[in-house]
Amino acid sequence: MPDRFAFSIDATDGKARTGVIRMARGEIRTPAFMPVGTAATVKAMRPADVRATGADIILGNTYHLMLRPGAERIARLGGLHAFMGWDRPILTDSGGYQVMSLSDLAKVSEEGVAFASHLDGSRHLLTPERSIEIQRLLGSDIAMTFDELVPTTASRGAQAQAMERSMRWARRSKDAFAGEGALFGIQQGGLDERLRAASAEALIEIDFDGYAVGGLAVGEGQAAMLACLDFAAPQLPEDRPRYLMGVGKPDDLVGAVMRGIDMFDCVLPTRSGRTGQAFTWDGPLNIRNARFAEDATPLDPESPVAGWSKAYLHHLVRSGEILGAMLMTEHNLWFYQRLMQAMRDAIAAGSLVAFAAEFAARYRPVPRVTAAPNRDS
Amino acid sequence: MPDRFAFSIDATDGKARTGVIRMARGEIRTPAFMPVGTAATVKAMRPADVRATGADIILGNTYHLMLRPGAERIARLGGLHAFMGWDRPILTDSGGYQVMSLSDLAKVSEEGVAFASHLDGSRHLLTPERSIEIQRLLGSDIAMTFDELVPTTASRGAQAQAMERSMRWARRSKDAFAGEGALFGIQQGGLDERLRAASAEALIEIDFDGYAVGGLAVGEGQAAMLACLDFAAPQLPEDRPRYLMGVGKPDDLVGAVMRGIDMFDCVLPTRSGRTGQAFTWDGPLNIRNARFAEDATPLDPESPVAGWSKAYLHHLVRSGEILGAMLMTEHNLWFYQRLMQAMRDAIAAGSLVAFAAEFAARYRPVPRVTAAPNRDS
Repeated sequence: MPDRFAFSIDATDGKARTGVIRMARGEIRTPAFMPVGTAATVKAMRPADVRATGADIILGNTYHLMLRPGAERIARLGGLHAFMGWDRPILTDSGGYQVMSLSDLAKVSEEGVAFASHLDGSRHLLTPERSIEIQRLLGSDIAMTFDELVPTTASRGAQAQAMERSMRWARRSKDAFAGEGALFGIQQGGLDERLRAASAEALIEIDFDGYAVGGLAVGEGQAAMLACLDFAAPQLPEDRPRYLMGVGKPDDLVGAVMRGIDMFDCVLPTRSGRTGQAFTWDGPLNIRNARFAEDATPLDPESPVAGWSKAYLHHLVRSGEILGAMLMTEHNLWFYQRLMQAMRDAIAAGSLVAFAAEFAARYRPVPRVTAAPNRDS
Repeated sequence: MPDRFAFSIDATDGKARTGVIRMARGEIRTPAFMPVGTAATVKAMRPADVRATGADIILGNTYHLMLRPGAERIARLGGLHAFMGWDRPILTDSGGYQVMSLSDLAKVSEEGVAFASHLDGSRHLLTPERSIEIQRLLGSDIAMTFDELVPTTASRGAQAQAMERSMRWARRSKDAFAGEGALFGIQQGGLDERLRAASAEALIEIDFDGYAVGGLAVGEGQAAMLACLDFAAPQLPEDRPRYLMGVGKPDDLVGAVMRGIDMFDCVLPTRSGRTGQAFTWDGPLNIRNARFAEDATPLDPESPVAGWSKAYLHHLVRSGEILGAMLMTEHNLWFYQRLMQAMRDAIAAGSLVAFAAEFAARYRPVPRVTAAPNRDS
């Protein structure tokens, strides 16, 4: 019988770790990057092509799927894996983040969050119990507890209240959980070390298969985020996967892996691909820029889209062609997975610090600005 | 040394023929359907996936490519095949049709057509010589003569004048042609048998590798089009490929093949795919229709997208997901190629009439209308 959930660490390098999560639907090499499949599709990608970029697991969004096509409908159609044609692990978020950021008229009470759909204005109530039920209906391999989010700029009192409610909701999520997969708890507490510590303690008391750092990457900036991870990550158990939600840019990933994070998800590689931003070892570039109009070189000689020139991608994206979104997305997902593989290799070799230094020396986080940067867009 | 251009007919069945066109870049099985790759991409498809549907040749549009990214630019980047990553034959149209239908302020003179780009209003002149030059710069395998089009509803006098000018332009196109591939002439003359005969005579006098029937599928309806083909197709040489431009719906293809047509191109399978129409042996269907919301069956068990249910495609298209356009397009291109293969097999077996009768008995050309047909769109 396959493992329900087992995490083994094969090597460490400083605070960084590399290992494997073993689950019934497959293995997840860590540190892992999870492409986001919001509406039962990693946008502009077939599942087989997502897998070919090196992804071991993808993420599905409870908020989007509960509204369209509906969790019960997906369950009747055999679950999310069969519905979308992805047979490896899927992590589902709880809807907590998106119900606050996307829905209309969200009203939080101890029971849960009442809100209006951003699609049609229909009224819904999302509670810890309903969130866990939806994730079970979807057939999630890794479910997340339902939590309440407040901005990192909120008062300490508001931060504390939201964190404490999230811990009560974590308890209710655990009690409601009867899935065959795993359940992760989510640490909250903003940028406050003591709130983060209290949150971690509460979660450890409940006991989860893995622990997420929530409430970051919401505008606080990379320096503040990494400073928070300096104390937040070690507060979470060493023998369980640590998942930094919603992060991030390639340089964010390097910084977070060095601080002991094992899992990431972010829309950046897919969303950027659709708008013409490509990630490379030299940093992001905007393929719409006129300097690429006759550039016959590929984005990267190892990329799965190396058969096409930057000039061709420039043409496709400028022309609004769907194939442009397809190829740019595939490149970016490949780049993210290549970066994760490079970090796993460096940790195993004990050379992560050297890798990070080399990476930082070459990678320019901000796209090169030309004389007329917006002329082409 | 590979053939420049050789057409062999392997079997006939009534007026229908099946055979092979042999060219340096590969063989084209006839009757052939050519997917349209307007802007150096068959929309929402990678070249390898286009090939996997069974396509031997695709079409590129001179008008679109001359405006963006420009013929000289494509030539500097190694030609259209290298630019887009398709190494098999490409037929290019001459721009004659689209310069009249898409550009602004088109002004026709004996020299050619002066027009303003629909993209940026820039002024251009397209002549037979420039059209042929552009097609050579693109690296076309089959180039088309530059012609003048008038609606089939124009007066006979206008039809005659446009046809006669097109024949003078065909002569100029032939004189200008120095490509390594083939050159096809285009018959004009609207729905008039004598004009069509005069056009065919003029083209045969010039001598082309193949002959296209132009000026049809512009709103005259299927009955009028097939009635025209009854006389127009036999006017063209039996030993050369006959190409019906811009056609058509699956039932159009069956009718035209029975009248001796060997080649087709049409945006319908790709464009329909992007708007949610799928072609099946039972006729077209609108995947957005609510009756597919929980339909767990595939569009066709043999389709390359048979791994996904109609319910999933319904969800993707309703949600505006790029993957919906990708999978629907792939299905439709596969269906078109499957239909051509079925006709080639039937002709070889001498059973095309029986095939056409079976096809017509099952195929409903108009999508099934439900009680509230537009509710879902």
